Amino acid sequence: MTERIRDIAHLSTVELYTPKFEESLWFFRDLLAMREVGRTTENGGEVAYLHCWDDYEPYSIKLTEKEHAGVGRVGWRAHSPEALERTVARIEATGLGEGWVDGEQGRGRTYRFQNPDRHLMEVYFDTEWYEATDEDRPALKNQASKFPGFGANARRLDHINYLTADMAGVCEFSEKVMGGYTTEFIQLNDGDVGAHWYTFGQKSYDMVYSDDWTGTPGRLHHVAFAADTREDILKAADIFLENGIFIEYGPYKHAIQQGFFLYVWEPGGNRIELANQGSRLILAPDWKPVGWTQEERARGQAWGMKTIPTFHTHGTPVVEDADSAANPHEAPKRDEGLES
Amino acid sequence: MTERIRDIAHLSTVELYTPKFEESLWFFRDLLAMREVGRTTENGGEVAYLHCWDDYEPYSIKLTEKEHAGVGRVGWRAHSPEALERTVARIEATGLGEGWVDGEQGRGRTYRFQNPDRHLMEVYFDTEWYEATDEDRPALKNQASKFPGFGANARRLDHINYLTADMAGVCEFSEKVMGGYTTEFIQLNDGDVGAHWYTFGQKSYDMVYSDDWTGTPGRLHHVAFAADTREDILKAADIFLENGIFIEYGPYKHAIQQGFFLYVWEPGGNRIELANQGSRLILAPDWKPVGWTQEERARGQAWGMKTIPTFHTHGTPVVEDADSAANPHEAPKRDEGLES
Amino acid sequence: MTERIRDIAHLSTVELYTPKFEESLWFFRDLLAMREVGRTTENGGEVAYLHCWDDYEPYSIKLTEKEHAGVGRVGWRAHSPEALERTVARIEATGLGEGWVDGEQGRGRTYRFQNPDRHLMEVYFDTEWYEATDEDRPALKNQASKFPGFGANARRLDHINYLTADMAGVCEFSEKVMGGYTTEFIQLNDGDVGAHWYTFGQKSYDMVYSDDWTGTPGRLHHVAFAADTREDILKAADIFLENGIFIEYGPYKHAIQQGFFLYVWEPGGNRIELANQGSRLILAPDWKPVGWTQEERARGQAWGMKTIPTFHTHGTPVVEDADSAANPHEAPKRDEGLES
Amino acid sequence: MTERIRDIAHLSTVELYTPKFEESLWFFRDLLAMREVGRTTENGGEVAYLHCWDDYEPYSIKLTEKEHAGVGRVGWRAHSPEALERTVARIEATGLGEGWVDGEQGRGRTYRFQNPDRHLMEVYFDTEWYEATDEDRPALKNQASKFPGFGANARRLDHINYLTADMAGVCEFSEKVMGGYTTEFIQLNDGDVGAHWYTFGQKSYDMVYSDDWTGTPGRLHHVAFAADTREDILKAADIFLENGIFIEYGPYKHAIQQGFFLYVWEPGGNRIELANQGSRLILAPDWKPVGWTQEERARGQAWGMKTIPTFHTHGTPVVEDADSAANPHEAPKRDEGLES
Repeated sequence: MTERIRDIAHLSTVELYTPKFEESLWFFRDLLAMREVGRTTENGGEVAYLHCWDDYEPYSIKLTEKEHAGVGRVGWRAHSPEALERTVARIEATGLGEGWVDGEQGRGRTYRFQNPDRHLMEVYFDTEWYEATDEDRPALKNQASKFPGFGANARRLDHINYLTADMAGVCEFSEKVMGGYTTEFIQLNDGDVGAHWYTFGQKSYDMVYSDDWTGTPGRLHHVAFAADTREDILKAADIFLENGIFIEYGPYKHAIQQGFFLYVWEPGGNRIELANQGSRLILAPDWKPVGWTQEERARGQAWGMKTIPTFHTHGTPVVEDADSAANPHEAPKRDEGLES
Repeated sequence: MTERIRDIAHLSTVELYTPKFEESLWFFRDLLAMREVGRTTENGGEVAYLHCWDDYEPYSIKLTEKEHAGVGRVGWRAHSPEALERTVARIEATGLGEGWVDGEQGRGRTYRFQNPDRHLMEVYFDTEWYEATDEDRPALKNQASKFPGFGANARRLDHINYLTADMAGVCEFSEKVMGGYTTEFIQLNDGDVGAHWYTFGQKSYDMVYSDDWTGTPGRLHHVAFAADTREDILKAADIFLENGIFIEYGPYKHAIQQGFFLYVWEPGGNRIELANQGSRLILAPDWKPVGWTQEERARGQAWGMKTIPTFHTHGTPVVEDADSAANPHEAPKRDEGLES
Repeated sequence: MTERIRDIAHLSTVELYTPKFEESLWFFRDLLAMREVGRTTENGGEVAYLHCWDDYEPYSIKLTEKEHAGVGRVGWRAHSPEALERTVARIEATGLGEGWVDGEQGRGRTYRFQNPDRHLMEVYFDTEWYEATDEDRPALKNQASKFPGFGANARRLDHINYLTADMAGVCEFSEKVMGGYTTEFIQLNDGDVGAHWYTFGQKSYDMVYSDDWTGTPGRLHHVAFAADTREDILKAADIFLENGIFIEYGPYKHAIQQGFFLYVWEPGGNRIELANQGSRLILAPDWKPVGWTQEERARGQAWGMKTIPTFHTHGTPVVEDADSAANPHEAPKRDEGLES
Repeated sequence: MTERIRDIAHLSTVELYTPKFEESLWFFRDLLAMREVGRTTENGGEVAYLHCWDDYEPYSIKLTEKEHAGVGRVGWRAHSPEALERTVARIEATGLGEGWVDGEQGRGRTYRFQNPDRHLMEVYFDTEWYEATDEDRPALKNQASKFPGFGANARRLDHINYLTADMAGVCEFSEKVMGGYTTEFIQLNDGDVGAHWYTFGQKSYDMVYSDDWTGTPGRLHHVAFAADTREDILKAADIFLENGIFIEYGPYKHAIQQGFFLYVWEPGGNRIELANQGSRLILAPDWKPVGWTQEERARGQAWGMKTIPTFHTHGTPVVEDADSAANPHEAPKRDEGLES
């Protein structure tokens, strides 16, 4: 038995593309209660950096204006400078490295790479911690900034769920290069893996790969934020309802990983999850990965509600003729959303 | 404007029929956390009286062994002795009265009657309050008995939802004879009423009539118990899951009346709801009844989940060939329950 | 047995005096999430009308600029026009009536009076229901306006707790004239009543009288708003903490009435409670009032925390030399608040 | 910068001594909802092994009958076989090692040692995972056993808070030998450390040392279990109240570490905490330890409630004449507990 690679500490930032920059910004800032901490332009499009109230790093989401929705560059923080070097060495050995750059927004020396499915990633160690200002200084100094007290109060970025056209490739890369540890997976009847959940620490997962039905590389299933309680998620559903956000699925409890979830589509079309795991953690260093069969999946979520069809027909960017949404860049209106 | 009739104080007891007496008793006692406070036999079948921990009356449910599931006699407490007399006079004028009897289980003089759809009811004023024993004496004396601390901790009986083959008849009876006040209703496109919610006090409803698709009189849609919090209902779903109870629908939030709900089928086949209304009350004495159109209903529950088919195909007793359940006396097993 | 008087439907509005109008307005609007629905001046001071998101009436709080904090005119809605007439007749018989006026803010013909402790009150039936605008139209039409989704999200005005220098007088008036029904009370060792809880419907209380240690008539102990869940109250505590509001007591659970509570002082000095009763209601029309002895009170709140000293030394308006607060018009700063 | 030692994965088991074995067993089994999974005798006293429903290891608590309350041997699981060897080597270098033994209850090769304050500990890697039986097999296979659905439903052992007479010694040992990482600490005005919080992973702490006012080595402040939600902790308070358990403090929210807490004394006298951290985790691999001054501590807990005196006068075993409890082996009765 060789020791587990534990060089990546956690998922730290996600870049999201949106064709509706202002509406998406409103969603993250006014409904998820994130703070805009930086603004620039790139390739003629707007870019906003947004920070969750208890993320210690300078930003959680980079929102980038683009023709279509989807996921851009995702950041992973290494556990130490040495861990960063070891990780980069393993990446370079795969030929998927892009090289060192100066990091954005207070992030130091950063190594960029892709996974085998062409998802853009980067890894780094040096970072400037978030500094609260007079406007968002917290009453208790052991949190990053003031509790917002509105909207969904997203505490921190929680995990990313990628669609992949190369499950075998991304799994090998995730395990051998990045050091992800499998906690749960779906095993289809034909032998293929339907989805794979990876953790880099004690959370039950930080990164997921789900099979892309269209065979298109580099797509996104969803990005998730941690809510403090299940009640917060129930309240958030009310808030999304009042604000015309398309509620796709939930609030309800997953069978896999047992998280309490709520999926909505932000105005740009990306699927966003609010997630809560209660006190569930994976403390076992040798956790035995839990596999779910197709039959077990057919039983639905924890309390029996079936998985909805759009979970298997909507990803970003939308693939015309392959994904089912009428307008690939737009969330369905609430009333015409799903067939009953 | 004549003053509202306010002679009935509240729903107090429901008799439920079950073809699986022991299993149903286990459900109410061990999962809903009700206490068995009396046992007898009637017509060769077992009868158990069961008490919710904070109901002030001597029992909440009378569980009666019978060939088929369904609802038996339902008790309503009058607001005063005078209110009882006035109510009985109005019932007698309709010809639906059955006459006075001695009440069961510490209940005094009781008048029995039927509604126009042959649901059995009774009204009374005199009652013996529940007396806790050494085993269930509460630490705080302003509650009826000790908080159970297990299962669903059903606090009190909350409401009854009847199926009816005579909507016009039961509505007129509910309003003019019983003094029910309409808070919400469903107005179908053909002009018929799909369902009607009545309150007798400040709760948003105590009694509901839903249209019976089979045209059979006297059936039950569900009986509901009040849970203290939404979290209690989420926990109850876990407990039902662990104990093999068929979870039909929920936990989720209704659009109509906005209650947080969980519907399960007790082992005898009757649909049981756990309900929570938060702090929502109907304080307005002249509340303007809220009508929902067929189109509005098609949008689903509060957060968009559609109403499930069994809500319109399962009632008790089951009507063979009309209701869809394969075995009329049995809840579907979890896995074969609903089509996805 | 004569039938209970049931002529008053519910507490509908409270006028609060504040020496710090802008700060108080900020508290109710930005922290309790009430909407300002009207603004005027009276006697040279500012007046704002504020509405809780699910109150059906046009306003919940009238905030009036004044030299000192305290309670002004409190409104009670009658159950019907006939109930209004009967109530006014009983008031007039006591000599405490002030006469009919045109109501404020869409309220119709209104009868003004005082209780024997000189608390100002009024009773009426005609009222214009709150009409949501494009800005606060709710997604679900069975609620008064859009769920705010920020701050404490105070759903509705819940109850008022008066200090009184004439317990016997106000109790007789509450019961015989107003028709309040006693649900709980504190019986001191010397035979005096320490506090008295009255309901006008099925909530466990709407109005409380607590003994005023200074012997000054017409003062206020606190005004309470209903929060939907206990979690809402826990979140509200975080929000008050972040915004520098003095948290006096809680969140915790009362033994008396068992409500989950949080007491803060709004910037003007008035004590404000957020309260949640879960599913607890008083359904019994002949509820047996629960009396608590001084010894029972000494055990503290439900889970044992003692009642804090300021509960018996702070009321509004503050009585100099009698109440203990250093500055009668000001809440103590968080750090210098209570002695440990 | 050298890399952090990360050889210990988590706290896994705590041995508790109790002079009231049967009552303590009832507390853990019937109120915390732990399952008795083994029974033996040691030195003439009873021993029970108890398992929390979602701990993957074979037991969480070893309850050992003894003359006095207190903490016995505490188990730490190493991250890997190699991590175990490295840890043992560091321990042996300090001279505090006791040597290898065969582990109890399915635990493999185990190395025993003491910290500098004579708290008994052990470290190991090999362990048999908990195997659910027909009686406690869970519906969802990604949890260790069936959700109990009663009492406090303690999910897993969470942390231990030791009293220490040698703060400098235990801190050096915790950091340099065990590899604990400091997340928060209290810095007294005289320069001494009042308490120190250590994590071994991503939880905000697993082990705490608090200054022992009596100067006695080897004592316990409390052991904590993770509850899934804050609502679970509020319910648990009701259950403890109904069952006559001494509620010392809470439910409330800590300023330090921000956990929602409830402290009770189990019948043997040991302080037990139910704790919930919501979604708060320490993801930063270079978390900057948060220090609290004496002045900051004087502000009380998160929402202002002061720390109670018994927090600084009760530890186990009780030190006669030094700790303040009248009867050192017994929890105070609820009514005579704390001075108001």
